Amino acid sequence: MPDPEAAVSQPRYVRVHPADNVAIVVNDGGLPAGARFECGLSLAEAVPQAHKVALQTIAEGAAIVRYGVTIGFAARELPRGSWVREDRVLLPEPPALDRIPLATVVPAPPEPLRGFTFQGYRNADGSAGTRNLLGITTTVQCVAGTVDVAAERIRRELLPRFPNVDGVVALNHTYGCGVAINAPGAEIPIRTVRHLALNPNFGGEVMAVSLGCEKLQPERLGLPVLRPEEPFVIRLQGEEHRCFGDMVAAILQMAERRLERLNARARVPCPASDLVVGMQCGGSDAFSGVTANPTVGYAADLLVRAGATVLFSEVTEVRDAVHLLGARAVSEEVGRALMREMAWYDDYLARGGADRSANHTPGNKRGGLSNIVEKALGSVAKSGTTALRAVAAPGERVREKGLVFLATPASDFICGTLQLAAGMNAHVFTTGEGTPYGLAMAPVVKVSSRTALARRWPDLIDFDAGRIATGQATIEDCGWELFRMILEAASGRKTWSEQWTLYNALALFNPAPVT
Amino acid sequence: MPDPEAAVSQPRYVRVHPADNVAIVVNDGGLPAGARFECGLSLAEAVPQAHKVALQTIAEGAAIVRYGVTIGFAARELPRGSWVREDRVLLPEPPALDRIPLATVVPAPPEPLRGFTFQGYRNADGSAGTRNLLGITTTVQCVAGTVDVAAERIRRELLPRFPNVDGVVALNHTYGCGVAINAPGAEIPIRTVRHLALNPNFGGEVMAVSLGCEKLQPERLGLPVLRPEEPFVIRLQGEEHRCFGDMVAAILQMAERRLERLNARARVPCPASDLVVGMQCGGSDAFSGVTANPTVGYAADLLVRAGATVLFSEVTEVRDAVHLLGARAVSEEVGRALMREMAWYDDYLARGGADRSANHTPGNKRGGLSNIVEKALGSVAKSGTTALRAVAAPGERVREKGLVFLATPASDFICGTLQLAAGMNAHVFTTGEGTPYGLAMAPVVKVSSRTALARRWPDLIDFDAGRIATGQATIEDCGWELFRMILEAASGRKTWSEQWTLYNALALFNPAPVT
Repeated sequence: MPDPEAAVSQPRYVRVHPADNVAIVVNDGGLPAGARFECGLSLAEAVPQAHKVALQTIAEGAAIVRYGVTIGFAARELPRGSWVREDRVLLPEPPALDRIPLATVVPAPPEPLRGFTFQGYRNADGSAGTRNLLGITTTVQCVAGTVDVAAERIRRELLPRFPNVDGVVALNHTYGCGVAINAPGAEIPIRTVRHLALNPNFGGEVMAVSLGCEKLQPERLGLPVLRPEEPFVIRLQGEEHRCFGDMVAAILQMAERRLERLNARARVPCPASDLVVGMQCGGSDAFSGVTANPTVGYAADLLVRAGATVLFSEVTEVRDAVHLLGARAVSEEVGRALMREMAWYDDYLARGGADRSANHTPGNKRGGLSNIVEKALGSVAKSGTTALRAVAAPGERVREKGLVFLATPASDFICGTLQLAAGMNAHVFTTGEGTPYGLAMAPVVKVSSRTALARRWPDLIDFDAGRIATGQATIEDCGWELFRMILEAASGRKTWSEQWTLYNALALFNPAPVT
Repeated sequence: MPDPEAAVSQPRYVRVHPADNVAIVVNDGGLPAGARFECGLSLAEAVPQAHKVALQTIAEGAAIVRYGVTIGFAARELPRGSWVREDRVLLPEPPALDRIPLATVVPAPPEPLRGFTFQGYRNADGSAGTRNLLGITTTVQCVAGTVDVAAERIRRELLPRFPNVDGVVALNHTYGCGVAINAPGAEIPIRTVRHLALNPNFGGEVMAVSLGCEKLQPERLGLPVLRPEEPFVIRLQGEEHRCFGDMVAAILQMAERRLERLNARARVPCPASDLVVGMQCGGSDAFSGVTANPTVGYAADLLVRAGATVLFSEVTEVRDAVHLLGARAVSEEVGRALMREMAWYDDYLARGGADRSANHTPGNKRGGLSNIVEKALGSVAKSGTTALRAVAAPGERVREKGLVFLATPASDFICGTLQLAAGMNAHVFTTGEGTPYGLAMAPVVKVSSRTALARRWPDLIDFDAGRIATGQATIEDCGWELFRMILEAASGRKTWSEQWTLYNALALFNPAPVT
């Protein structure tokens, strides 16, 4: 085995595709002017880690190619060995949605992968939980304070008696009233609240707290009535509550019956096909598309082969690569659904005076991603190589198996919330810059794109994909390892964010106005 | 003193203005057909409590007048004694903004009210706190989980040593990244985050937690550097943090220095003019405009006379009454600013396919408010009778004294958050249907519009204004009582929501798209 330190002290770059005329610098701390790579290329100027170097002189106006795709055009001549900086790259137009070939390069169904299982909770609706949680749905923000007080008392007073229950989650949000509930797009947050309540990790034990006078009346959520004899909505304005204490007591009482049933459950072997794994990236750098996201893509292929559902998302990080996905769509119908979601989001952004380039962050730039095209090409690597089987709109529950595009904003927490609503029971989150991300409703496996981050944050990063850049591991090695880690996490092994109870709040996607 | 029960068993209505051709039924449980009022009017049909009865026959298409103002037009003939139901009232057009007389009926400056004080915390910037809180600002949602973990440890491990500090508030929100930060309107959430950090109840002891790669970089918040020698931003991606424990420890360490200084402060007498009182209503019914909101309006006049700042807000609940306010503006310039904010919001709603009528809730309807016009006329009663001194845009800090319109959405939590950003140090919240509202950053005095609610929720409602409807108290009595209660709450007496630590999360107003 090569010495890892030696491996990185030698100037080293990663070129993804034979057609690329740029590559990214691997070495920690970047490389100085004059640094010489094994191939003989010398740096004309200093280049930071993860930033791009020109492998050949690129004329002004000529295409800059990474991942075998044009990520932009040279704003001026870029000599061989020079730093291909953000301000030297002009942004191309996004692919025109009406001219994209659909379902033209559909990958053949991959070889099935049999025999992989995890220990999960079997639900009545056929889904499987990876955690055994009590979820308390809320119809409106007005009840959030009360539900927080009640949830804290449930944790302290009730949970110790129900050791098989992993926790209680207050599904608080800022929707439900003070919003234009009949405006176009309002169906998105409403169905999100409904489907969050039905996440497999809540075991079908739905309970909801309503205020009473809110716009989002409980009936409008359309939650299934599983036990007609048993009420599942507490209305705080109900005459039966004679004080605040009564309201909290009513929530505790309703929770207790559900905790008894949840506590009677046990983990059983479930096929890997019961997994619904949401893929996401946040705080991306130029390594994300080379190490972490391809690892996730490899694992996604394994999951698809095992019959599971893989969700990938983030419309603005797919928009510039949509021609690659349209061709991979399993049918023209699926391809058209993809284009429809892209067009909807184009319009949504335009209405607000923005476009997909607003996605790009200071951290992305610092991390070497010149623009949204380069970011998107790295981002879609998470989708692996299988056919795109289905497309879901934000807030929808996903029932299909295989690779599914769930059209969500790229905002980490909105995306996570929508993936949970889609039925996600395990989450993979890749990061280059590092983010202490966590969700209360499902285990999150955090994957770093660089070894330096995994070393600096040993108690936050679950998986180091940076080994790929230094040649210590292959994408295949890491993909299999991550696949197995997902199964372990699904079986109950706590991820770092769960160990610290590091949970971000839900964030609903409401494209309609507030009133 | 009359027997309160006898007072309500007699059929009774409230007519607000001599020109009104409708009045609202006072009696608990409503009144049956045939019920006869003291004036001789008999009900032609049953009318629920708080709903309107026609005092004379109103012809089809004729104006329905309440508060001396047309709230709608009869959809069919409404015989004397009939129920003026929502479906029998046609919505009028909102006042055209370009034709409203400005500063034409400016009230004379009211007689100053001297000698009223509260016990507050004097701040270096001249403001005064009503609570002594440590606020931890966040630039982005990515750090929220970490800040929650740190805040919980601060409460448990540090606060017991600093008994003069009332608490620690994590200023978590869903902004900062994954948003179109350069789109029109993005300045609103950004300046809101800035100004929340500068709320008088944080004593100028600013500290902020940043991730590092987020769009909302700490510098962009433009927080004032009060102690150049002392860092006030912790960047979680900083190389100095070698693990999650390091991040939390750094937050605790920064918090501790601030807690020492906050703990050294003591309450001192402050003139009532140091108060910045935000007025708001939520879960309104037809009594809100007759009891609770006029009580608040009376107290608002007293506060203005004492030199304080009174904020009233909720654009969609002012829109239909804006002609009344335009005339009261202290100058044409202030009047124009009011119209500008209204026009901005009209446009914002139209862009999203909605208008001000989207404000109206099922609870409003049940509570007898037929439409947004009737709701608005009740809502503006909170503003009292003094001249409109200034208008502020959402997210702005308010420095003017007197009555100020802060142009916010009516959404309770967005409005509360924006009033806190404006510098609010005491909050008054009126409710008809009842809502267990609370804020962590400032005391909230909750005022019920009906005695029945105050009785049912004795441990949530701080003030019962329902006594006005039953004739047991006058608006003047209640106004003075509420004014004194505000001073007491400002001096440290805990309101009900504080006793239960019943705190709703901040909700930023972001009119721009998410990415």
